[in-house]
Amino acid sequence: MFEFEIEARSGPARAGKLTLPHGTVDTPVFMPVGTQGTVRALSPNDLRSAGATLVLANTYHLHVRPGEQVVERLGGLHRFMAWDRPLLTDSGGFQVFSLEGFRRVDEDGVEFQSHVDGSRRTLTPERATEIQWILGADIAMAFDHVVPGGADEATARDALERTLKWLERCARRHRELADGRTGGRADGTAVTDRQSAGPAVRQTLWPILQGGTHLQLRTEGLRRILELGSWTGLAVGGLSVGEPKALMYDILERLEPKLPALPRYLMGVGFPQDLVAAVERGVDLFDCVAPTRNGRNGSAFTPDGPVNIRNAEHREDPRPLDATCDCETCTTFSRGYLRHLFVAEELLGLRLLSLHNVRYLIRLAAEMRAAIRRSALGPWAAEWRRRYLHARSA
Amino acid sequence: MFEFEIEARSGPARAGKLTLPHGTVDTPVFMPVGTQGTVRALSPNDLRSAGATLVLANTYHLHVRPGEQVVERLGGLHRFMAWDRPLLTDSGGFQVFSLEGFRRVDEDGVEFQSHVDGSRRTLTPERATEIQWILGADIAMAFDHVVPGGADEATARDALERTLKWLERCARRHRELADGRTGGRADGTAVTDRQSAGPAVRQTLWPILQGGTHLQLRTEGLRRILELGSWTGLAVGGLSVGEPKALMYDILERLEPKLPALPRYLMGVGFPQDLVAAVERGVDLFDCVAPTRNGRNGSAFTPDGPVNIRNAEHREDPRPLDATCDCETCTTFSRGYLRHLFVAEELLGLRLLSLHNVRYLIRLAAEMRAAIRRSALGPWAAEWRRRYLHARSA
Repeated sequence: MFEFEIEARSGPARAGKLTLPHGTVDTPVFMPVGTQGTVRALSPNDLRSAGATLVLANTYHLHVRPGEQVVERLGGLHRFMAWDRPLLTDSGGFQVFSLEGFRRVDEDGVEFQSHVDGSRRTLTPERATEIQWILGADIAMAFDHVVPGGADEATARDALERTLKWLERCARRHRELADGRTGGRADGTAVTDRQSAGPAVRQTLWPILQGGTHLQLRTEGLRRILELGSWTGLAVGGLSVGEPKALMYDILERLEPKLPALPRYLMGVGFPQDLVAAVERGVDLFDCVAPTRNGRNGSAFTPDGPVNIRNAEHREDPRPLDATCDCETCTTFSRGYLRHLFVAEELLGLRLLSLHNVRYLIRLAAEMRAAIRRSALGPWAAEWRRRYLHARSA
Repeated sequence: MFEFEIEARSGPARAGKLTLPHGTVDTPVFMPVGTQGTVRALSPNDLRSAGATLVLANTYHLHVRPGEQVVERLGGLHRFMAWDRPLLTDSGGFQVFSLEGFRRVDEDGVEFQSHVDGSRRTLTPERATEIQWILGADIAMAFDHVVPGGADEATARDALERTLKWLERCARRHRELADGRTGGRADGTAVTDRQSAGPAVRQTLWPILQGGTHLQLRTEGLRRILELGSWTGLAVGGLSVGEPKALMYDILERLEPKLPALPRYLMGVGFPQDLVAAVERGVDLFDCVAPTRNGRNGSAFTPDGPVNIRNAEHREDPRPLDATCDCETCTTFSRGYLRHLFVAEELLGLRLLSLHNVRYLIRLAAEMRAAIRRSALGPWAAEWRRRYLHARSA
């Protein structure tokens, strides 16, 4: 369980297979984001038809509403959202540090205000780990301190140190839960240990590397994470949060030779060109709300660059959104009809463009996987960029 | 083509089979409403999975946006909305007489203001017929003058007379179009006669009986409609528009013995109890936005009466919305999850409840059909009411 087999390489890029309790995941892979236990506008059947193998859900959102106890009583996160394939939950760190209502951070954890009812709440490494254990995703993430993209070195150093200390506490609590030594919760109530009734280990915990845009902090953070334990995967957080793209690519490129053979998850990325650039730099997993958020705004990914379906040029266009795509949207409807749905503010439009965009990123990852397996990622990427970026500037 | 075979009777109720260019329709049947060329929140696959055989689209809405020429250039209404089973279009009469904005009616037609851009437009019997011919549904409806539920006899008489005169003009124009004698449009432009290239008759035209709540007007109107031509179906309009339900049932009951063997379509109905009452009074076809509109508001039809999924009682309820239902919503998700989707304002909730409600009404019609075929509609309806209405008042 939680094994990662690298099946092929093309430069730093890898094609791999990640084995998880709810199934195997071919990498590189794009994870659709199910913030509140649902990928916006899409059903589990839609996700399966789009080829999704791994879905992300947000710990912060599910903790605030409906609450992890409700999810637990409804059978755990898989049953709750009717997704029987692998799930990953983030730790809530990114959300509480991005929130408007963020209040106070100290060594113990973060106090924040719920965006739903304004109530004061606290997340600590232990609580974030317990909540994720109760939710029961295949992969849980360590609770981290995220700083803005432009943070100076002292600020980034401070957050890195805290993240490393919190990682130890997350890992300790996760081991206790996995071993059935649940004890009490950090808040004094009992943890219902539904998960440990089955096979010994139902969930793995991945650390998150922080360090802002400071390569030296990233390198040091990586070394210290690897000293702290034997992990089954590793996330790179705190990128794609406002810093220049070239800087993100540069950090990934310089980190890559120092990374172990573990699966590497670049959090919050991304757009098609970012996926391609990051896979070329050795990244295996991605998540981003872009395909669904952009889809709801009428913006679709295509091999020739983004298309805004609201544009008048599509009014009488009988062609599919993306002639190369096999999704329900592209095999069933014309651009003219899709435009009509958006202009007429029909709900079906939101779904159809979200579905296409998710399918687009999943296919993009699968195409890169195939290119890696034939040791031809470089030429594939050059051709892909020629078409995608040329069209954009046209 | 356009044949209607009555296969069984149970009192005035009939189980029939209606043959249309795009397929056959078992009656009694409920038609989901695709106002703007899409049944709100549902895809064609959803509709197929719900067992829909016949879908209604609104001529007024499609004329205003995107315009029938756009639909025509995108392959006609079936291709436009990717629905390959039978379609029915209303005539626009109901909409223009229900519009908030400016409206002027004279013998020629109705001048009204588009709800989209405020532009002044005119619908005449000829235009309404041409627009529907261009859209290309299996069944087109005659352009009618609809009055409010409480209209006095003089008002209702005036509208009935106008509707009868307009029916003659609709029928004449429809015959010309079907015969390929398209001539010019009423507005002077040419009609692209895409439809007449195929089999001789692609579309049939049904008259609408008006007369408000005045039985004598209804009876006279029916007689004069039947004198005007040989029809393939007949609609009863102007009911369920604000008058007491008992009055609607009474009119249906008294009209029924005078109705020919044609399929009978009660427009804009309805709610489950109305469907049952109307089938008992010999009605075969129904349409209503209730299943989708109520679904979007979190209200679901169940055999035990309506359920508001937002209610706190569903918070941790692992049971399906309707344990007797075979739809995707009921076979996949818990009430607790559906409530979460509504409380969290997730788009998937709108779809799932709409899907269930449409499936509910389609199954209700199918159950009545089965009861009619075993000559047992009375006992079936008594049992159905016992459960549905008892639960509501409980």
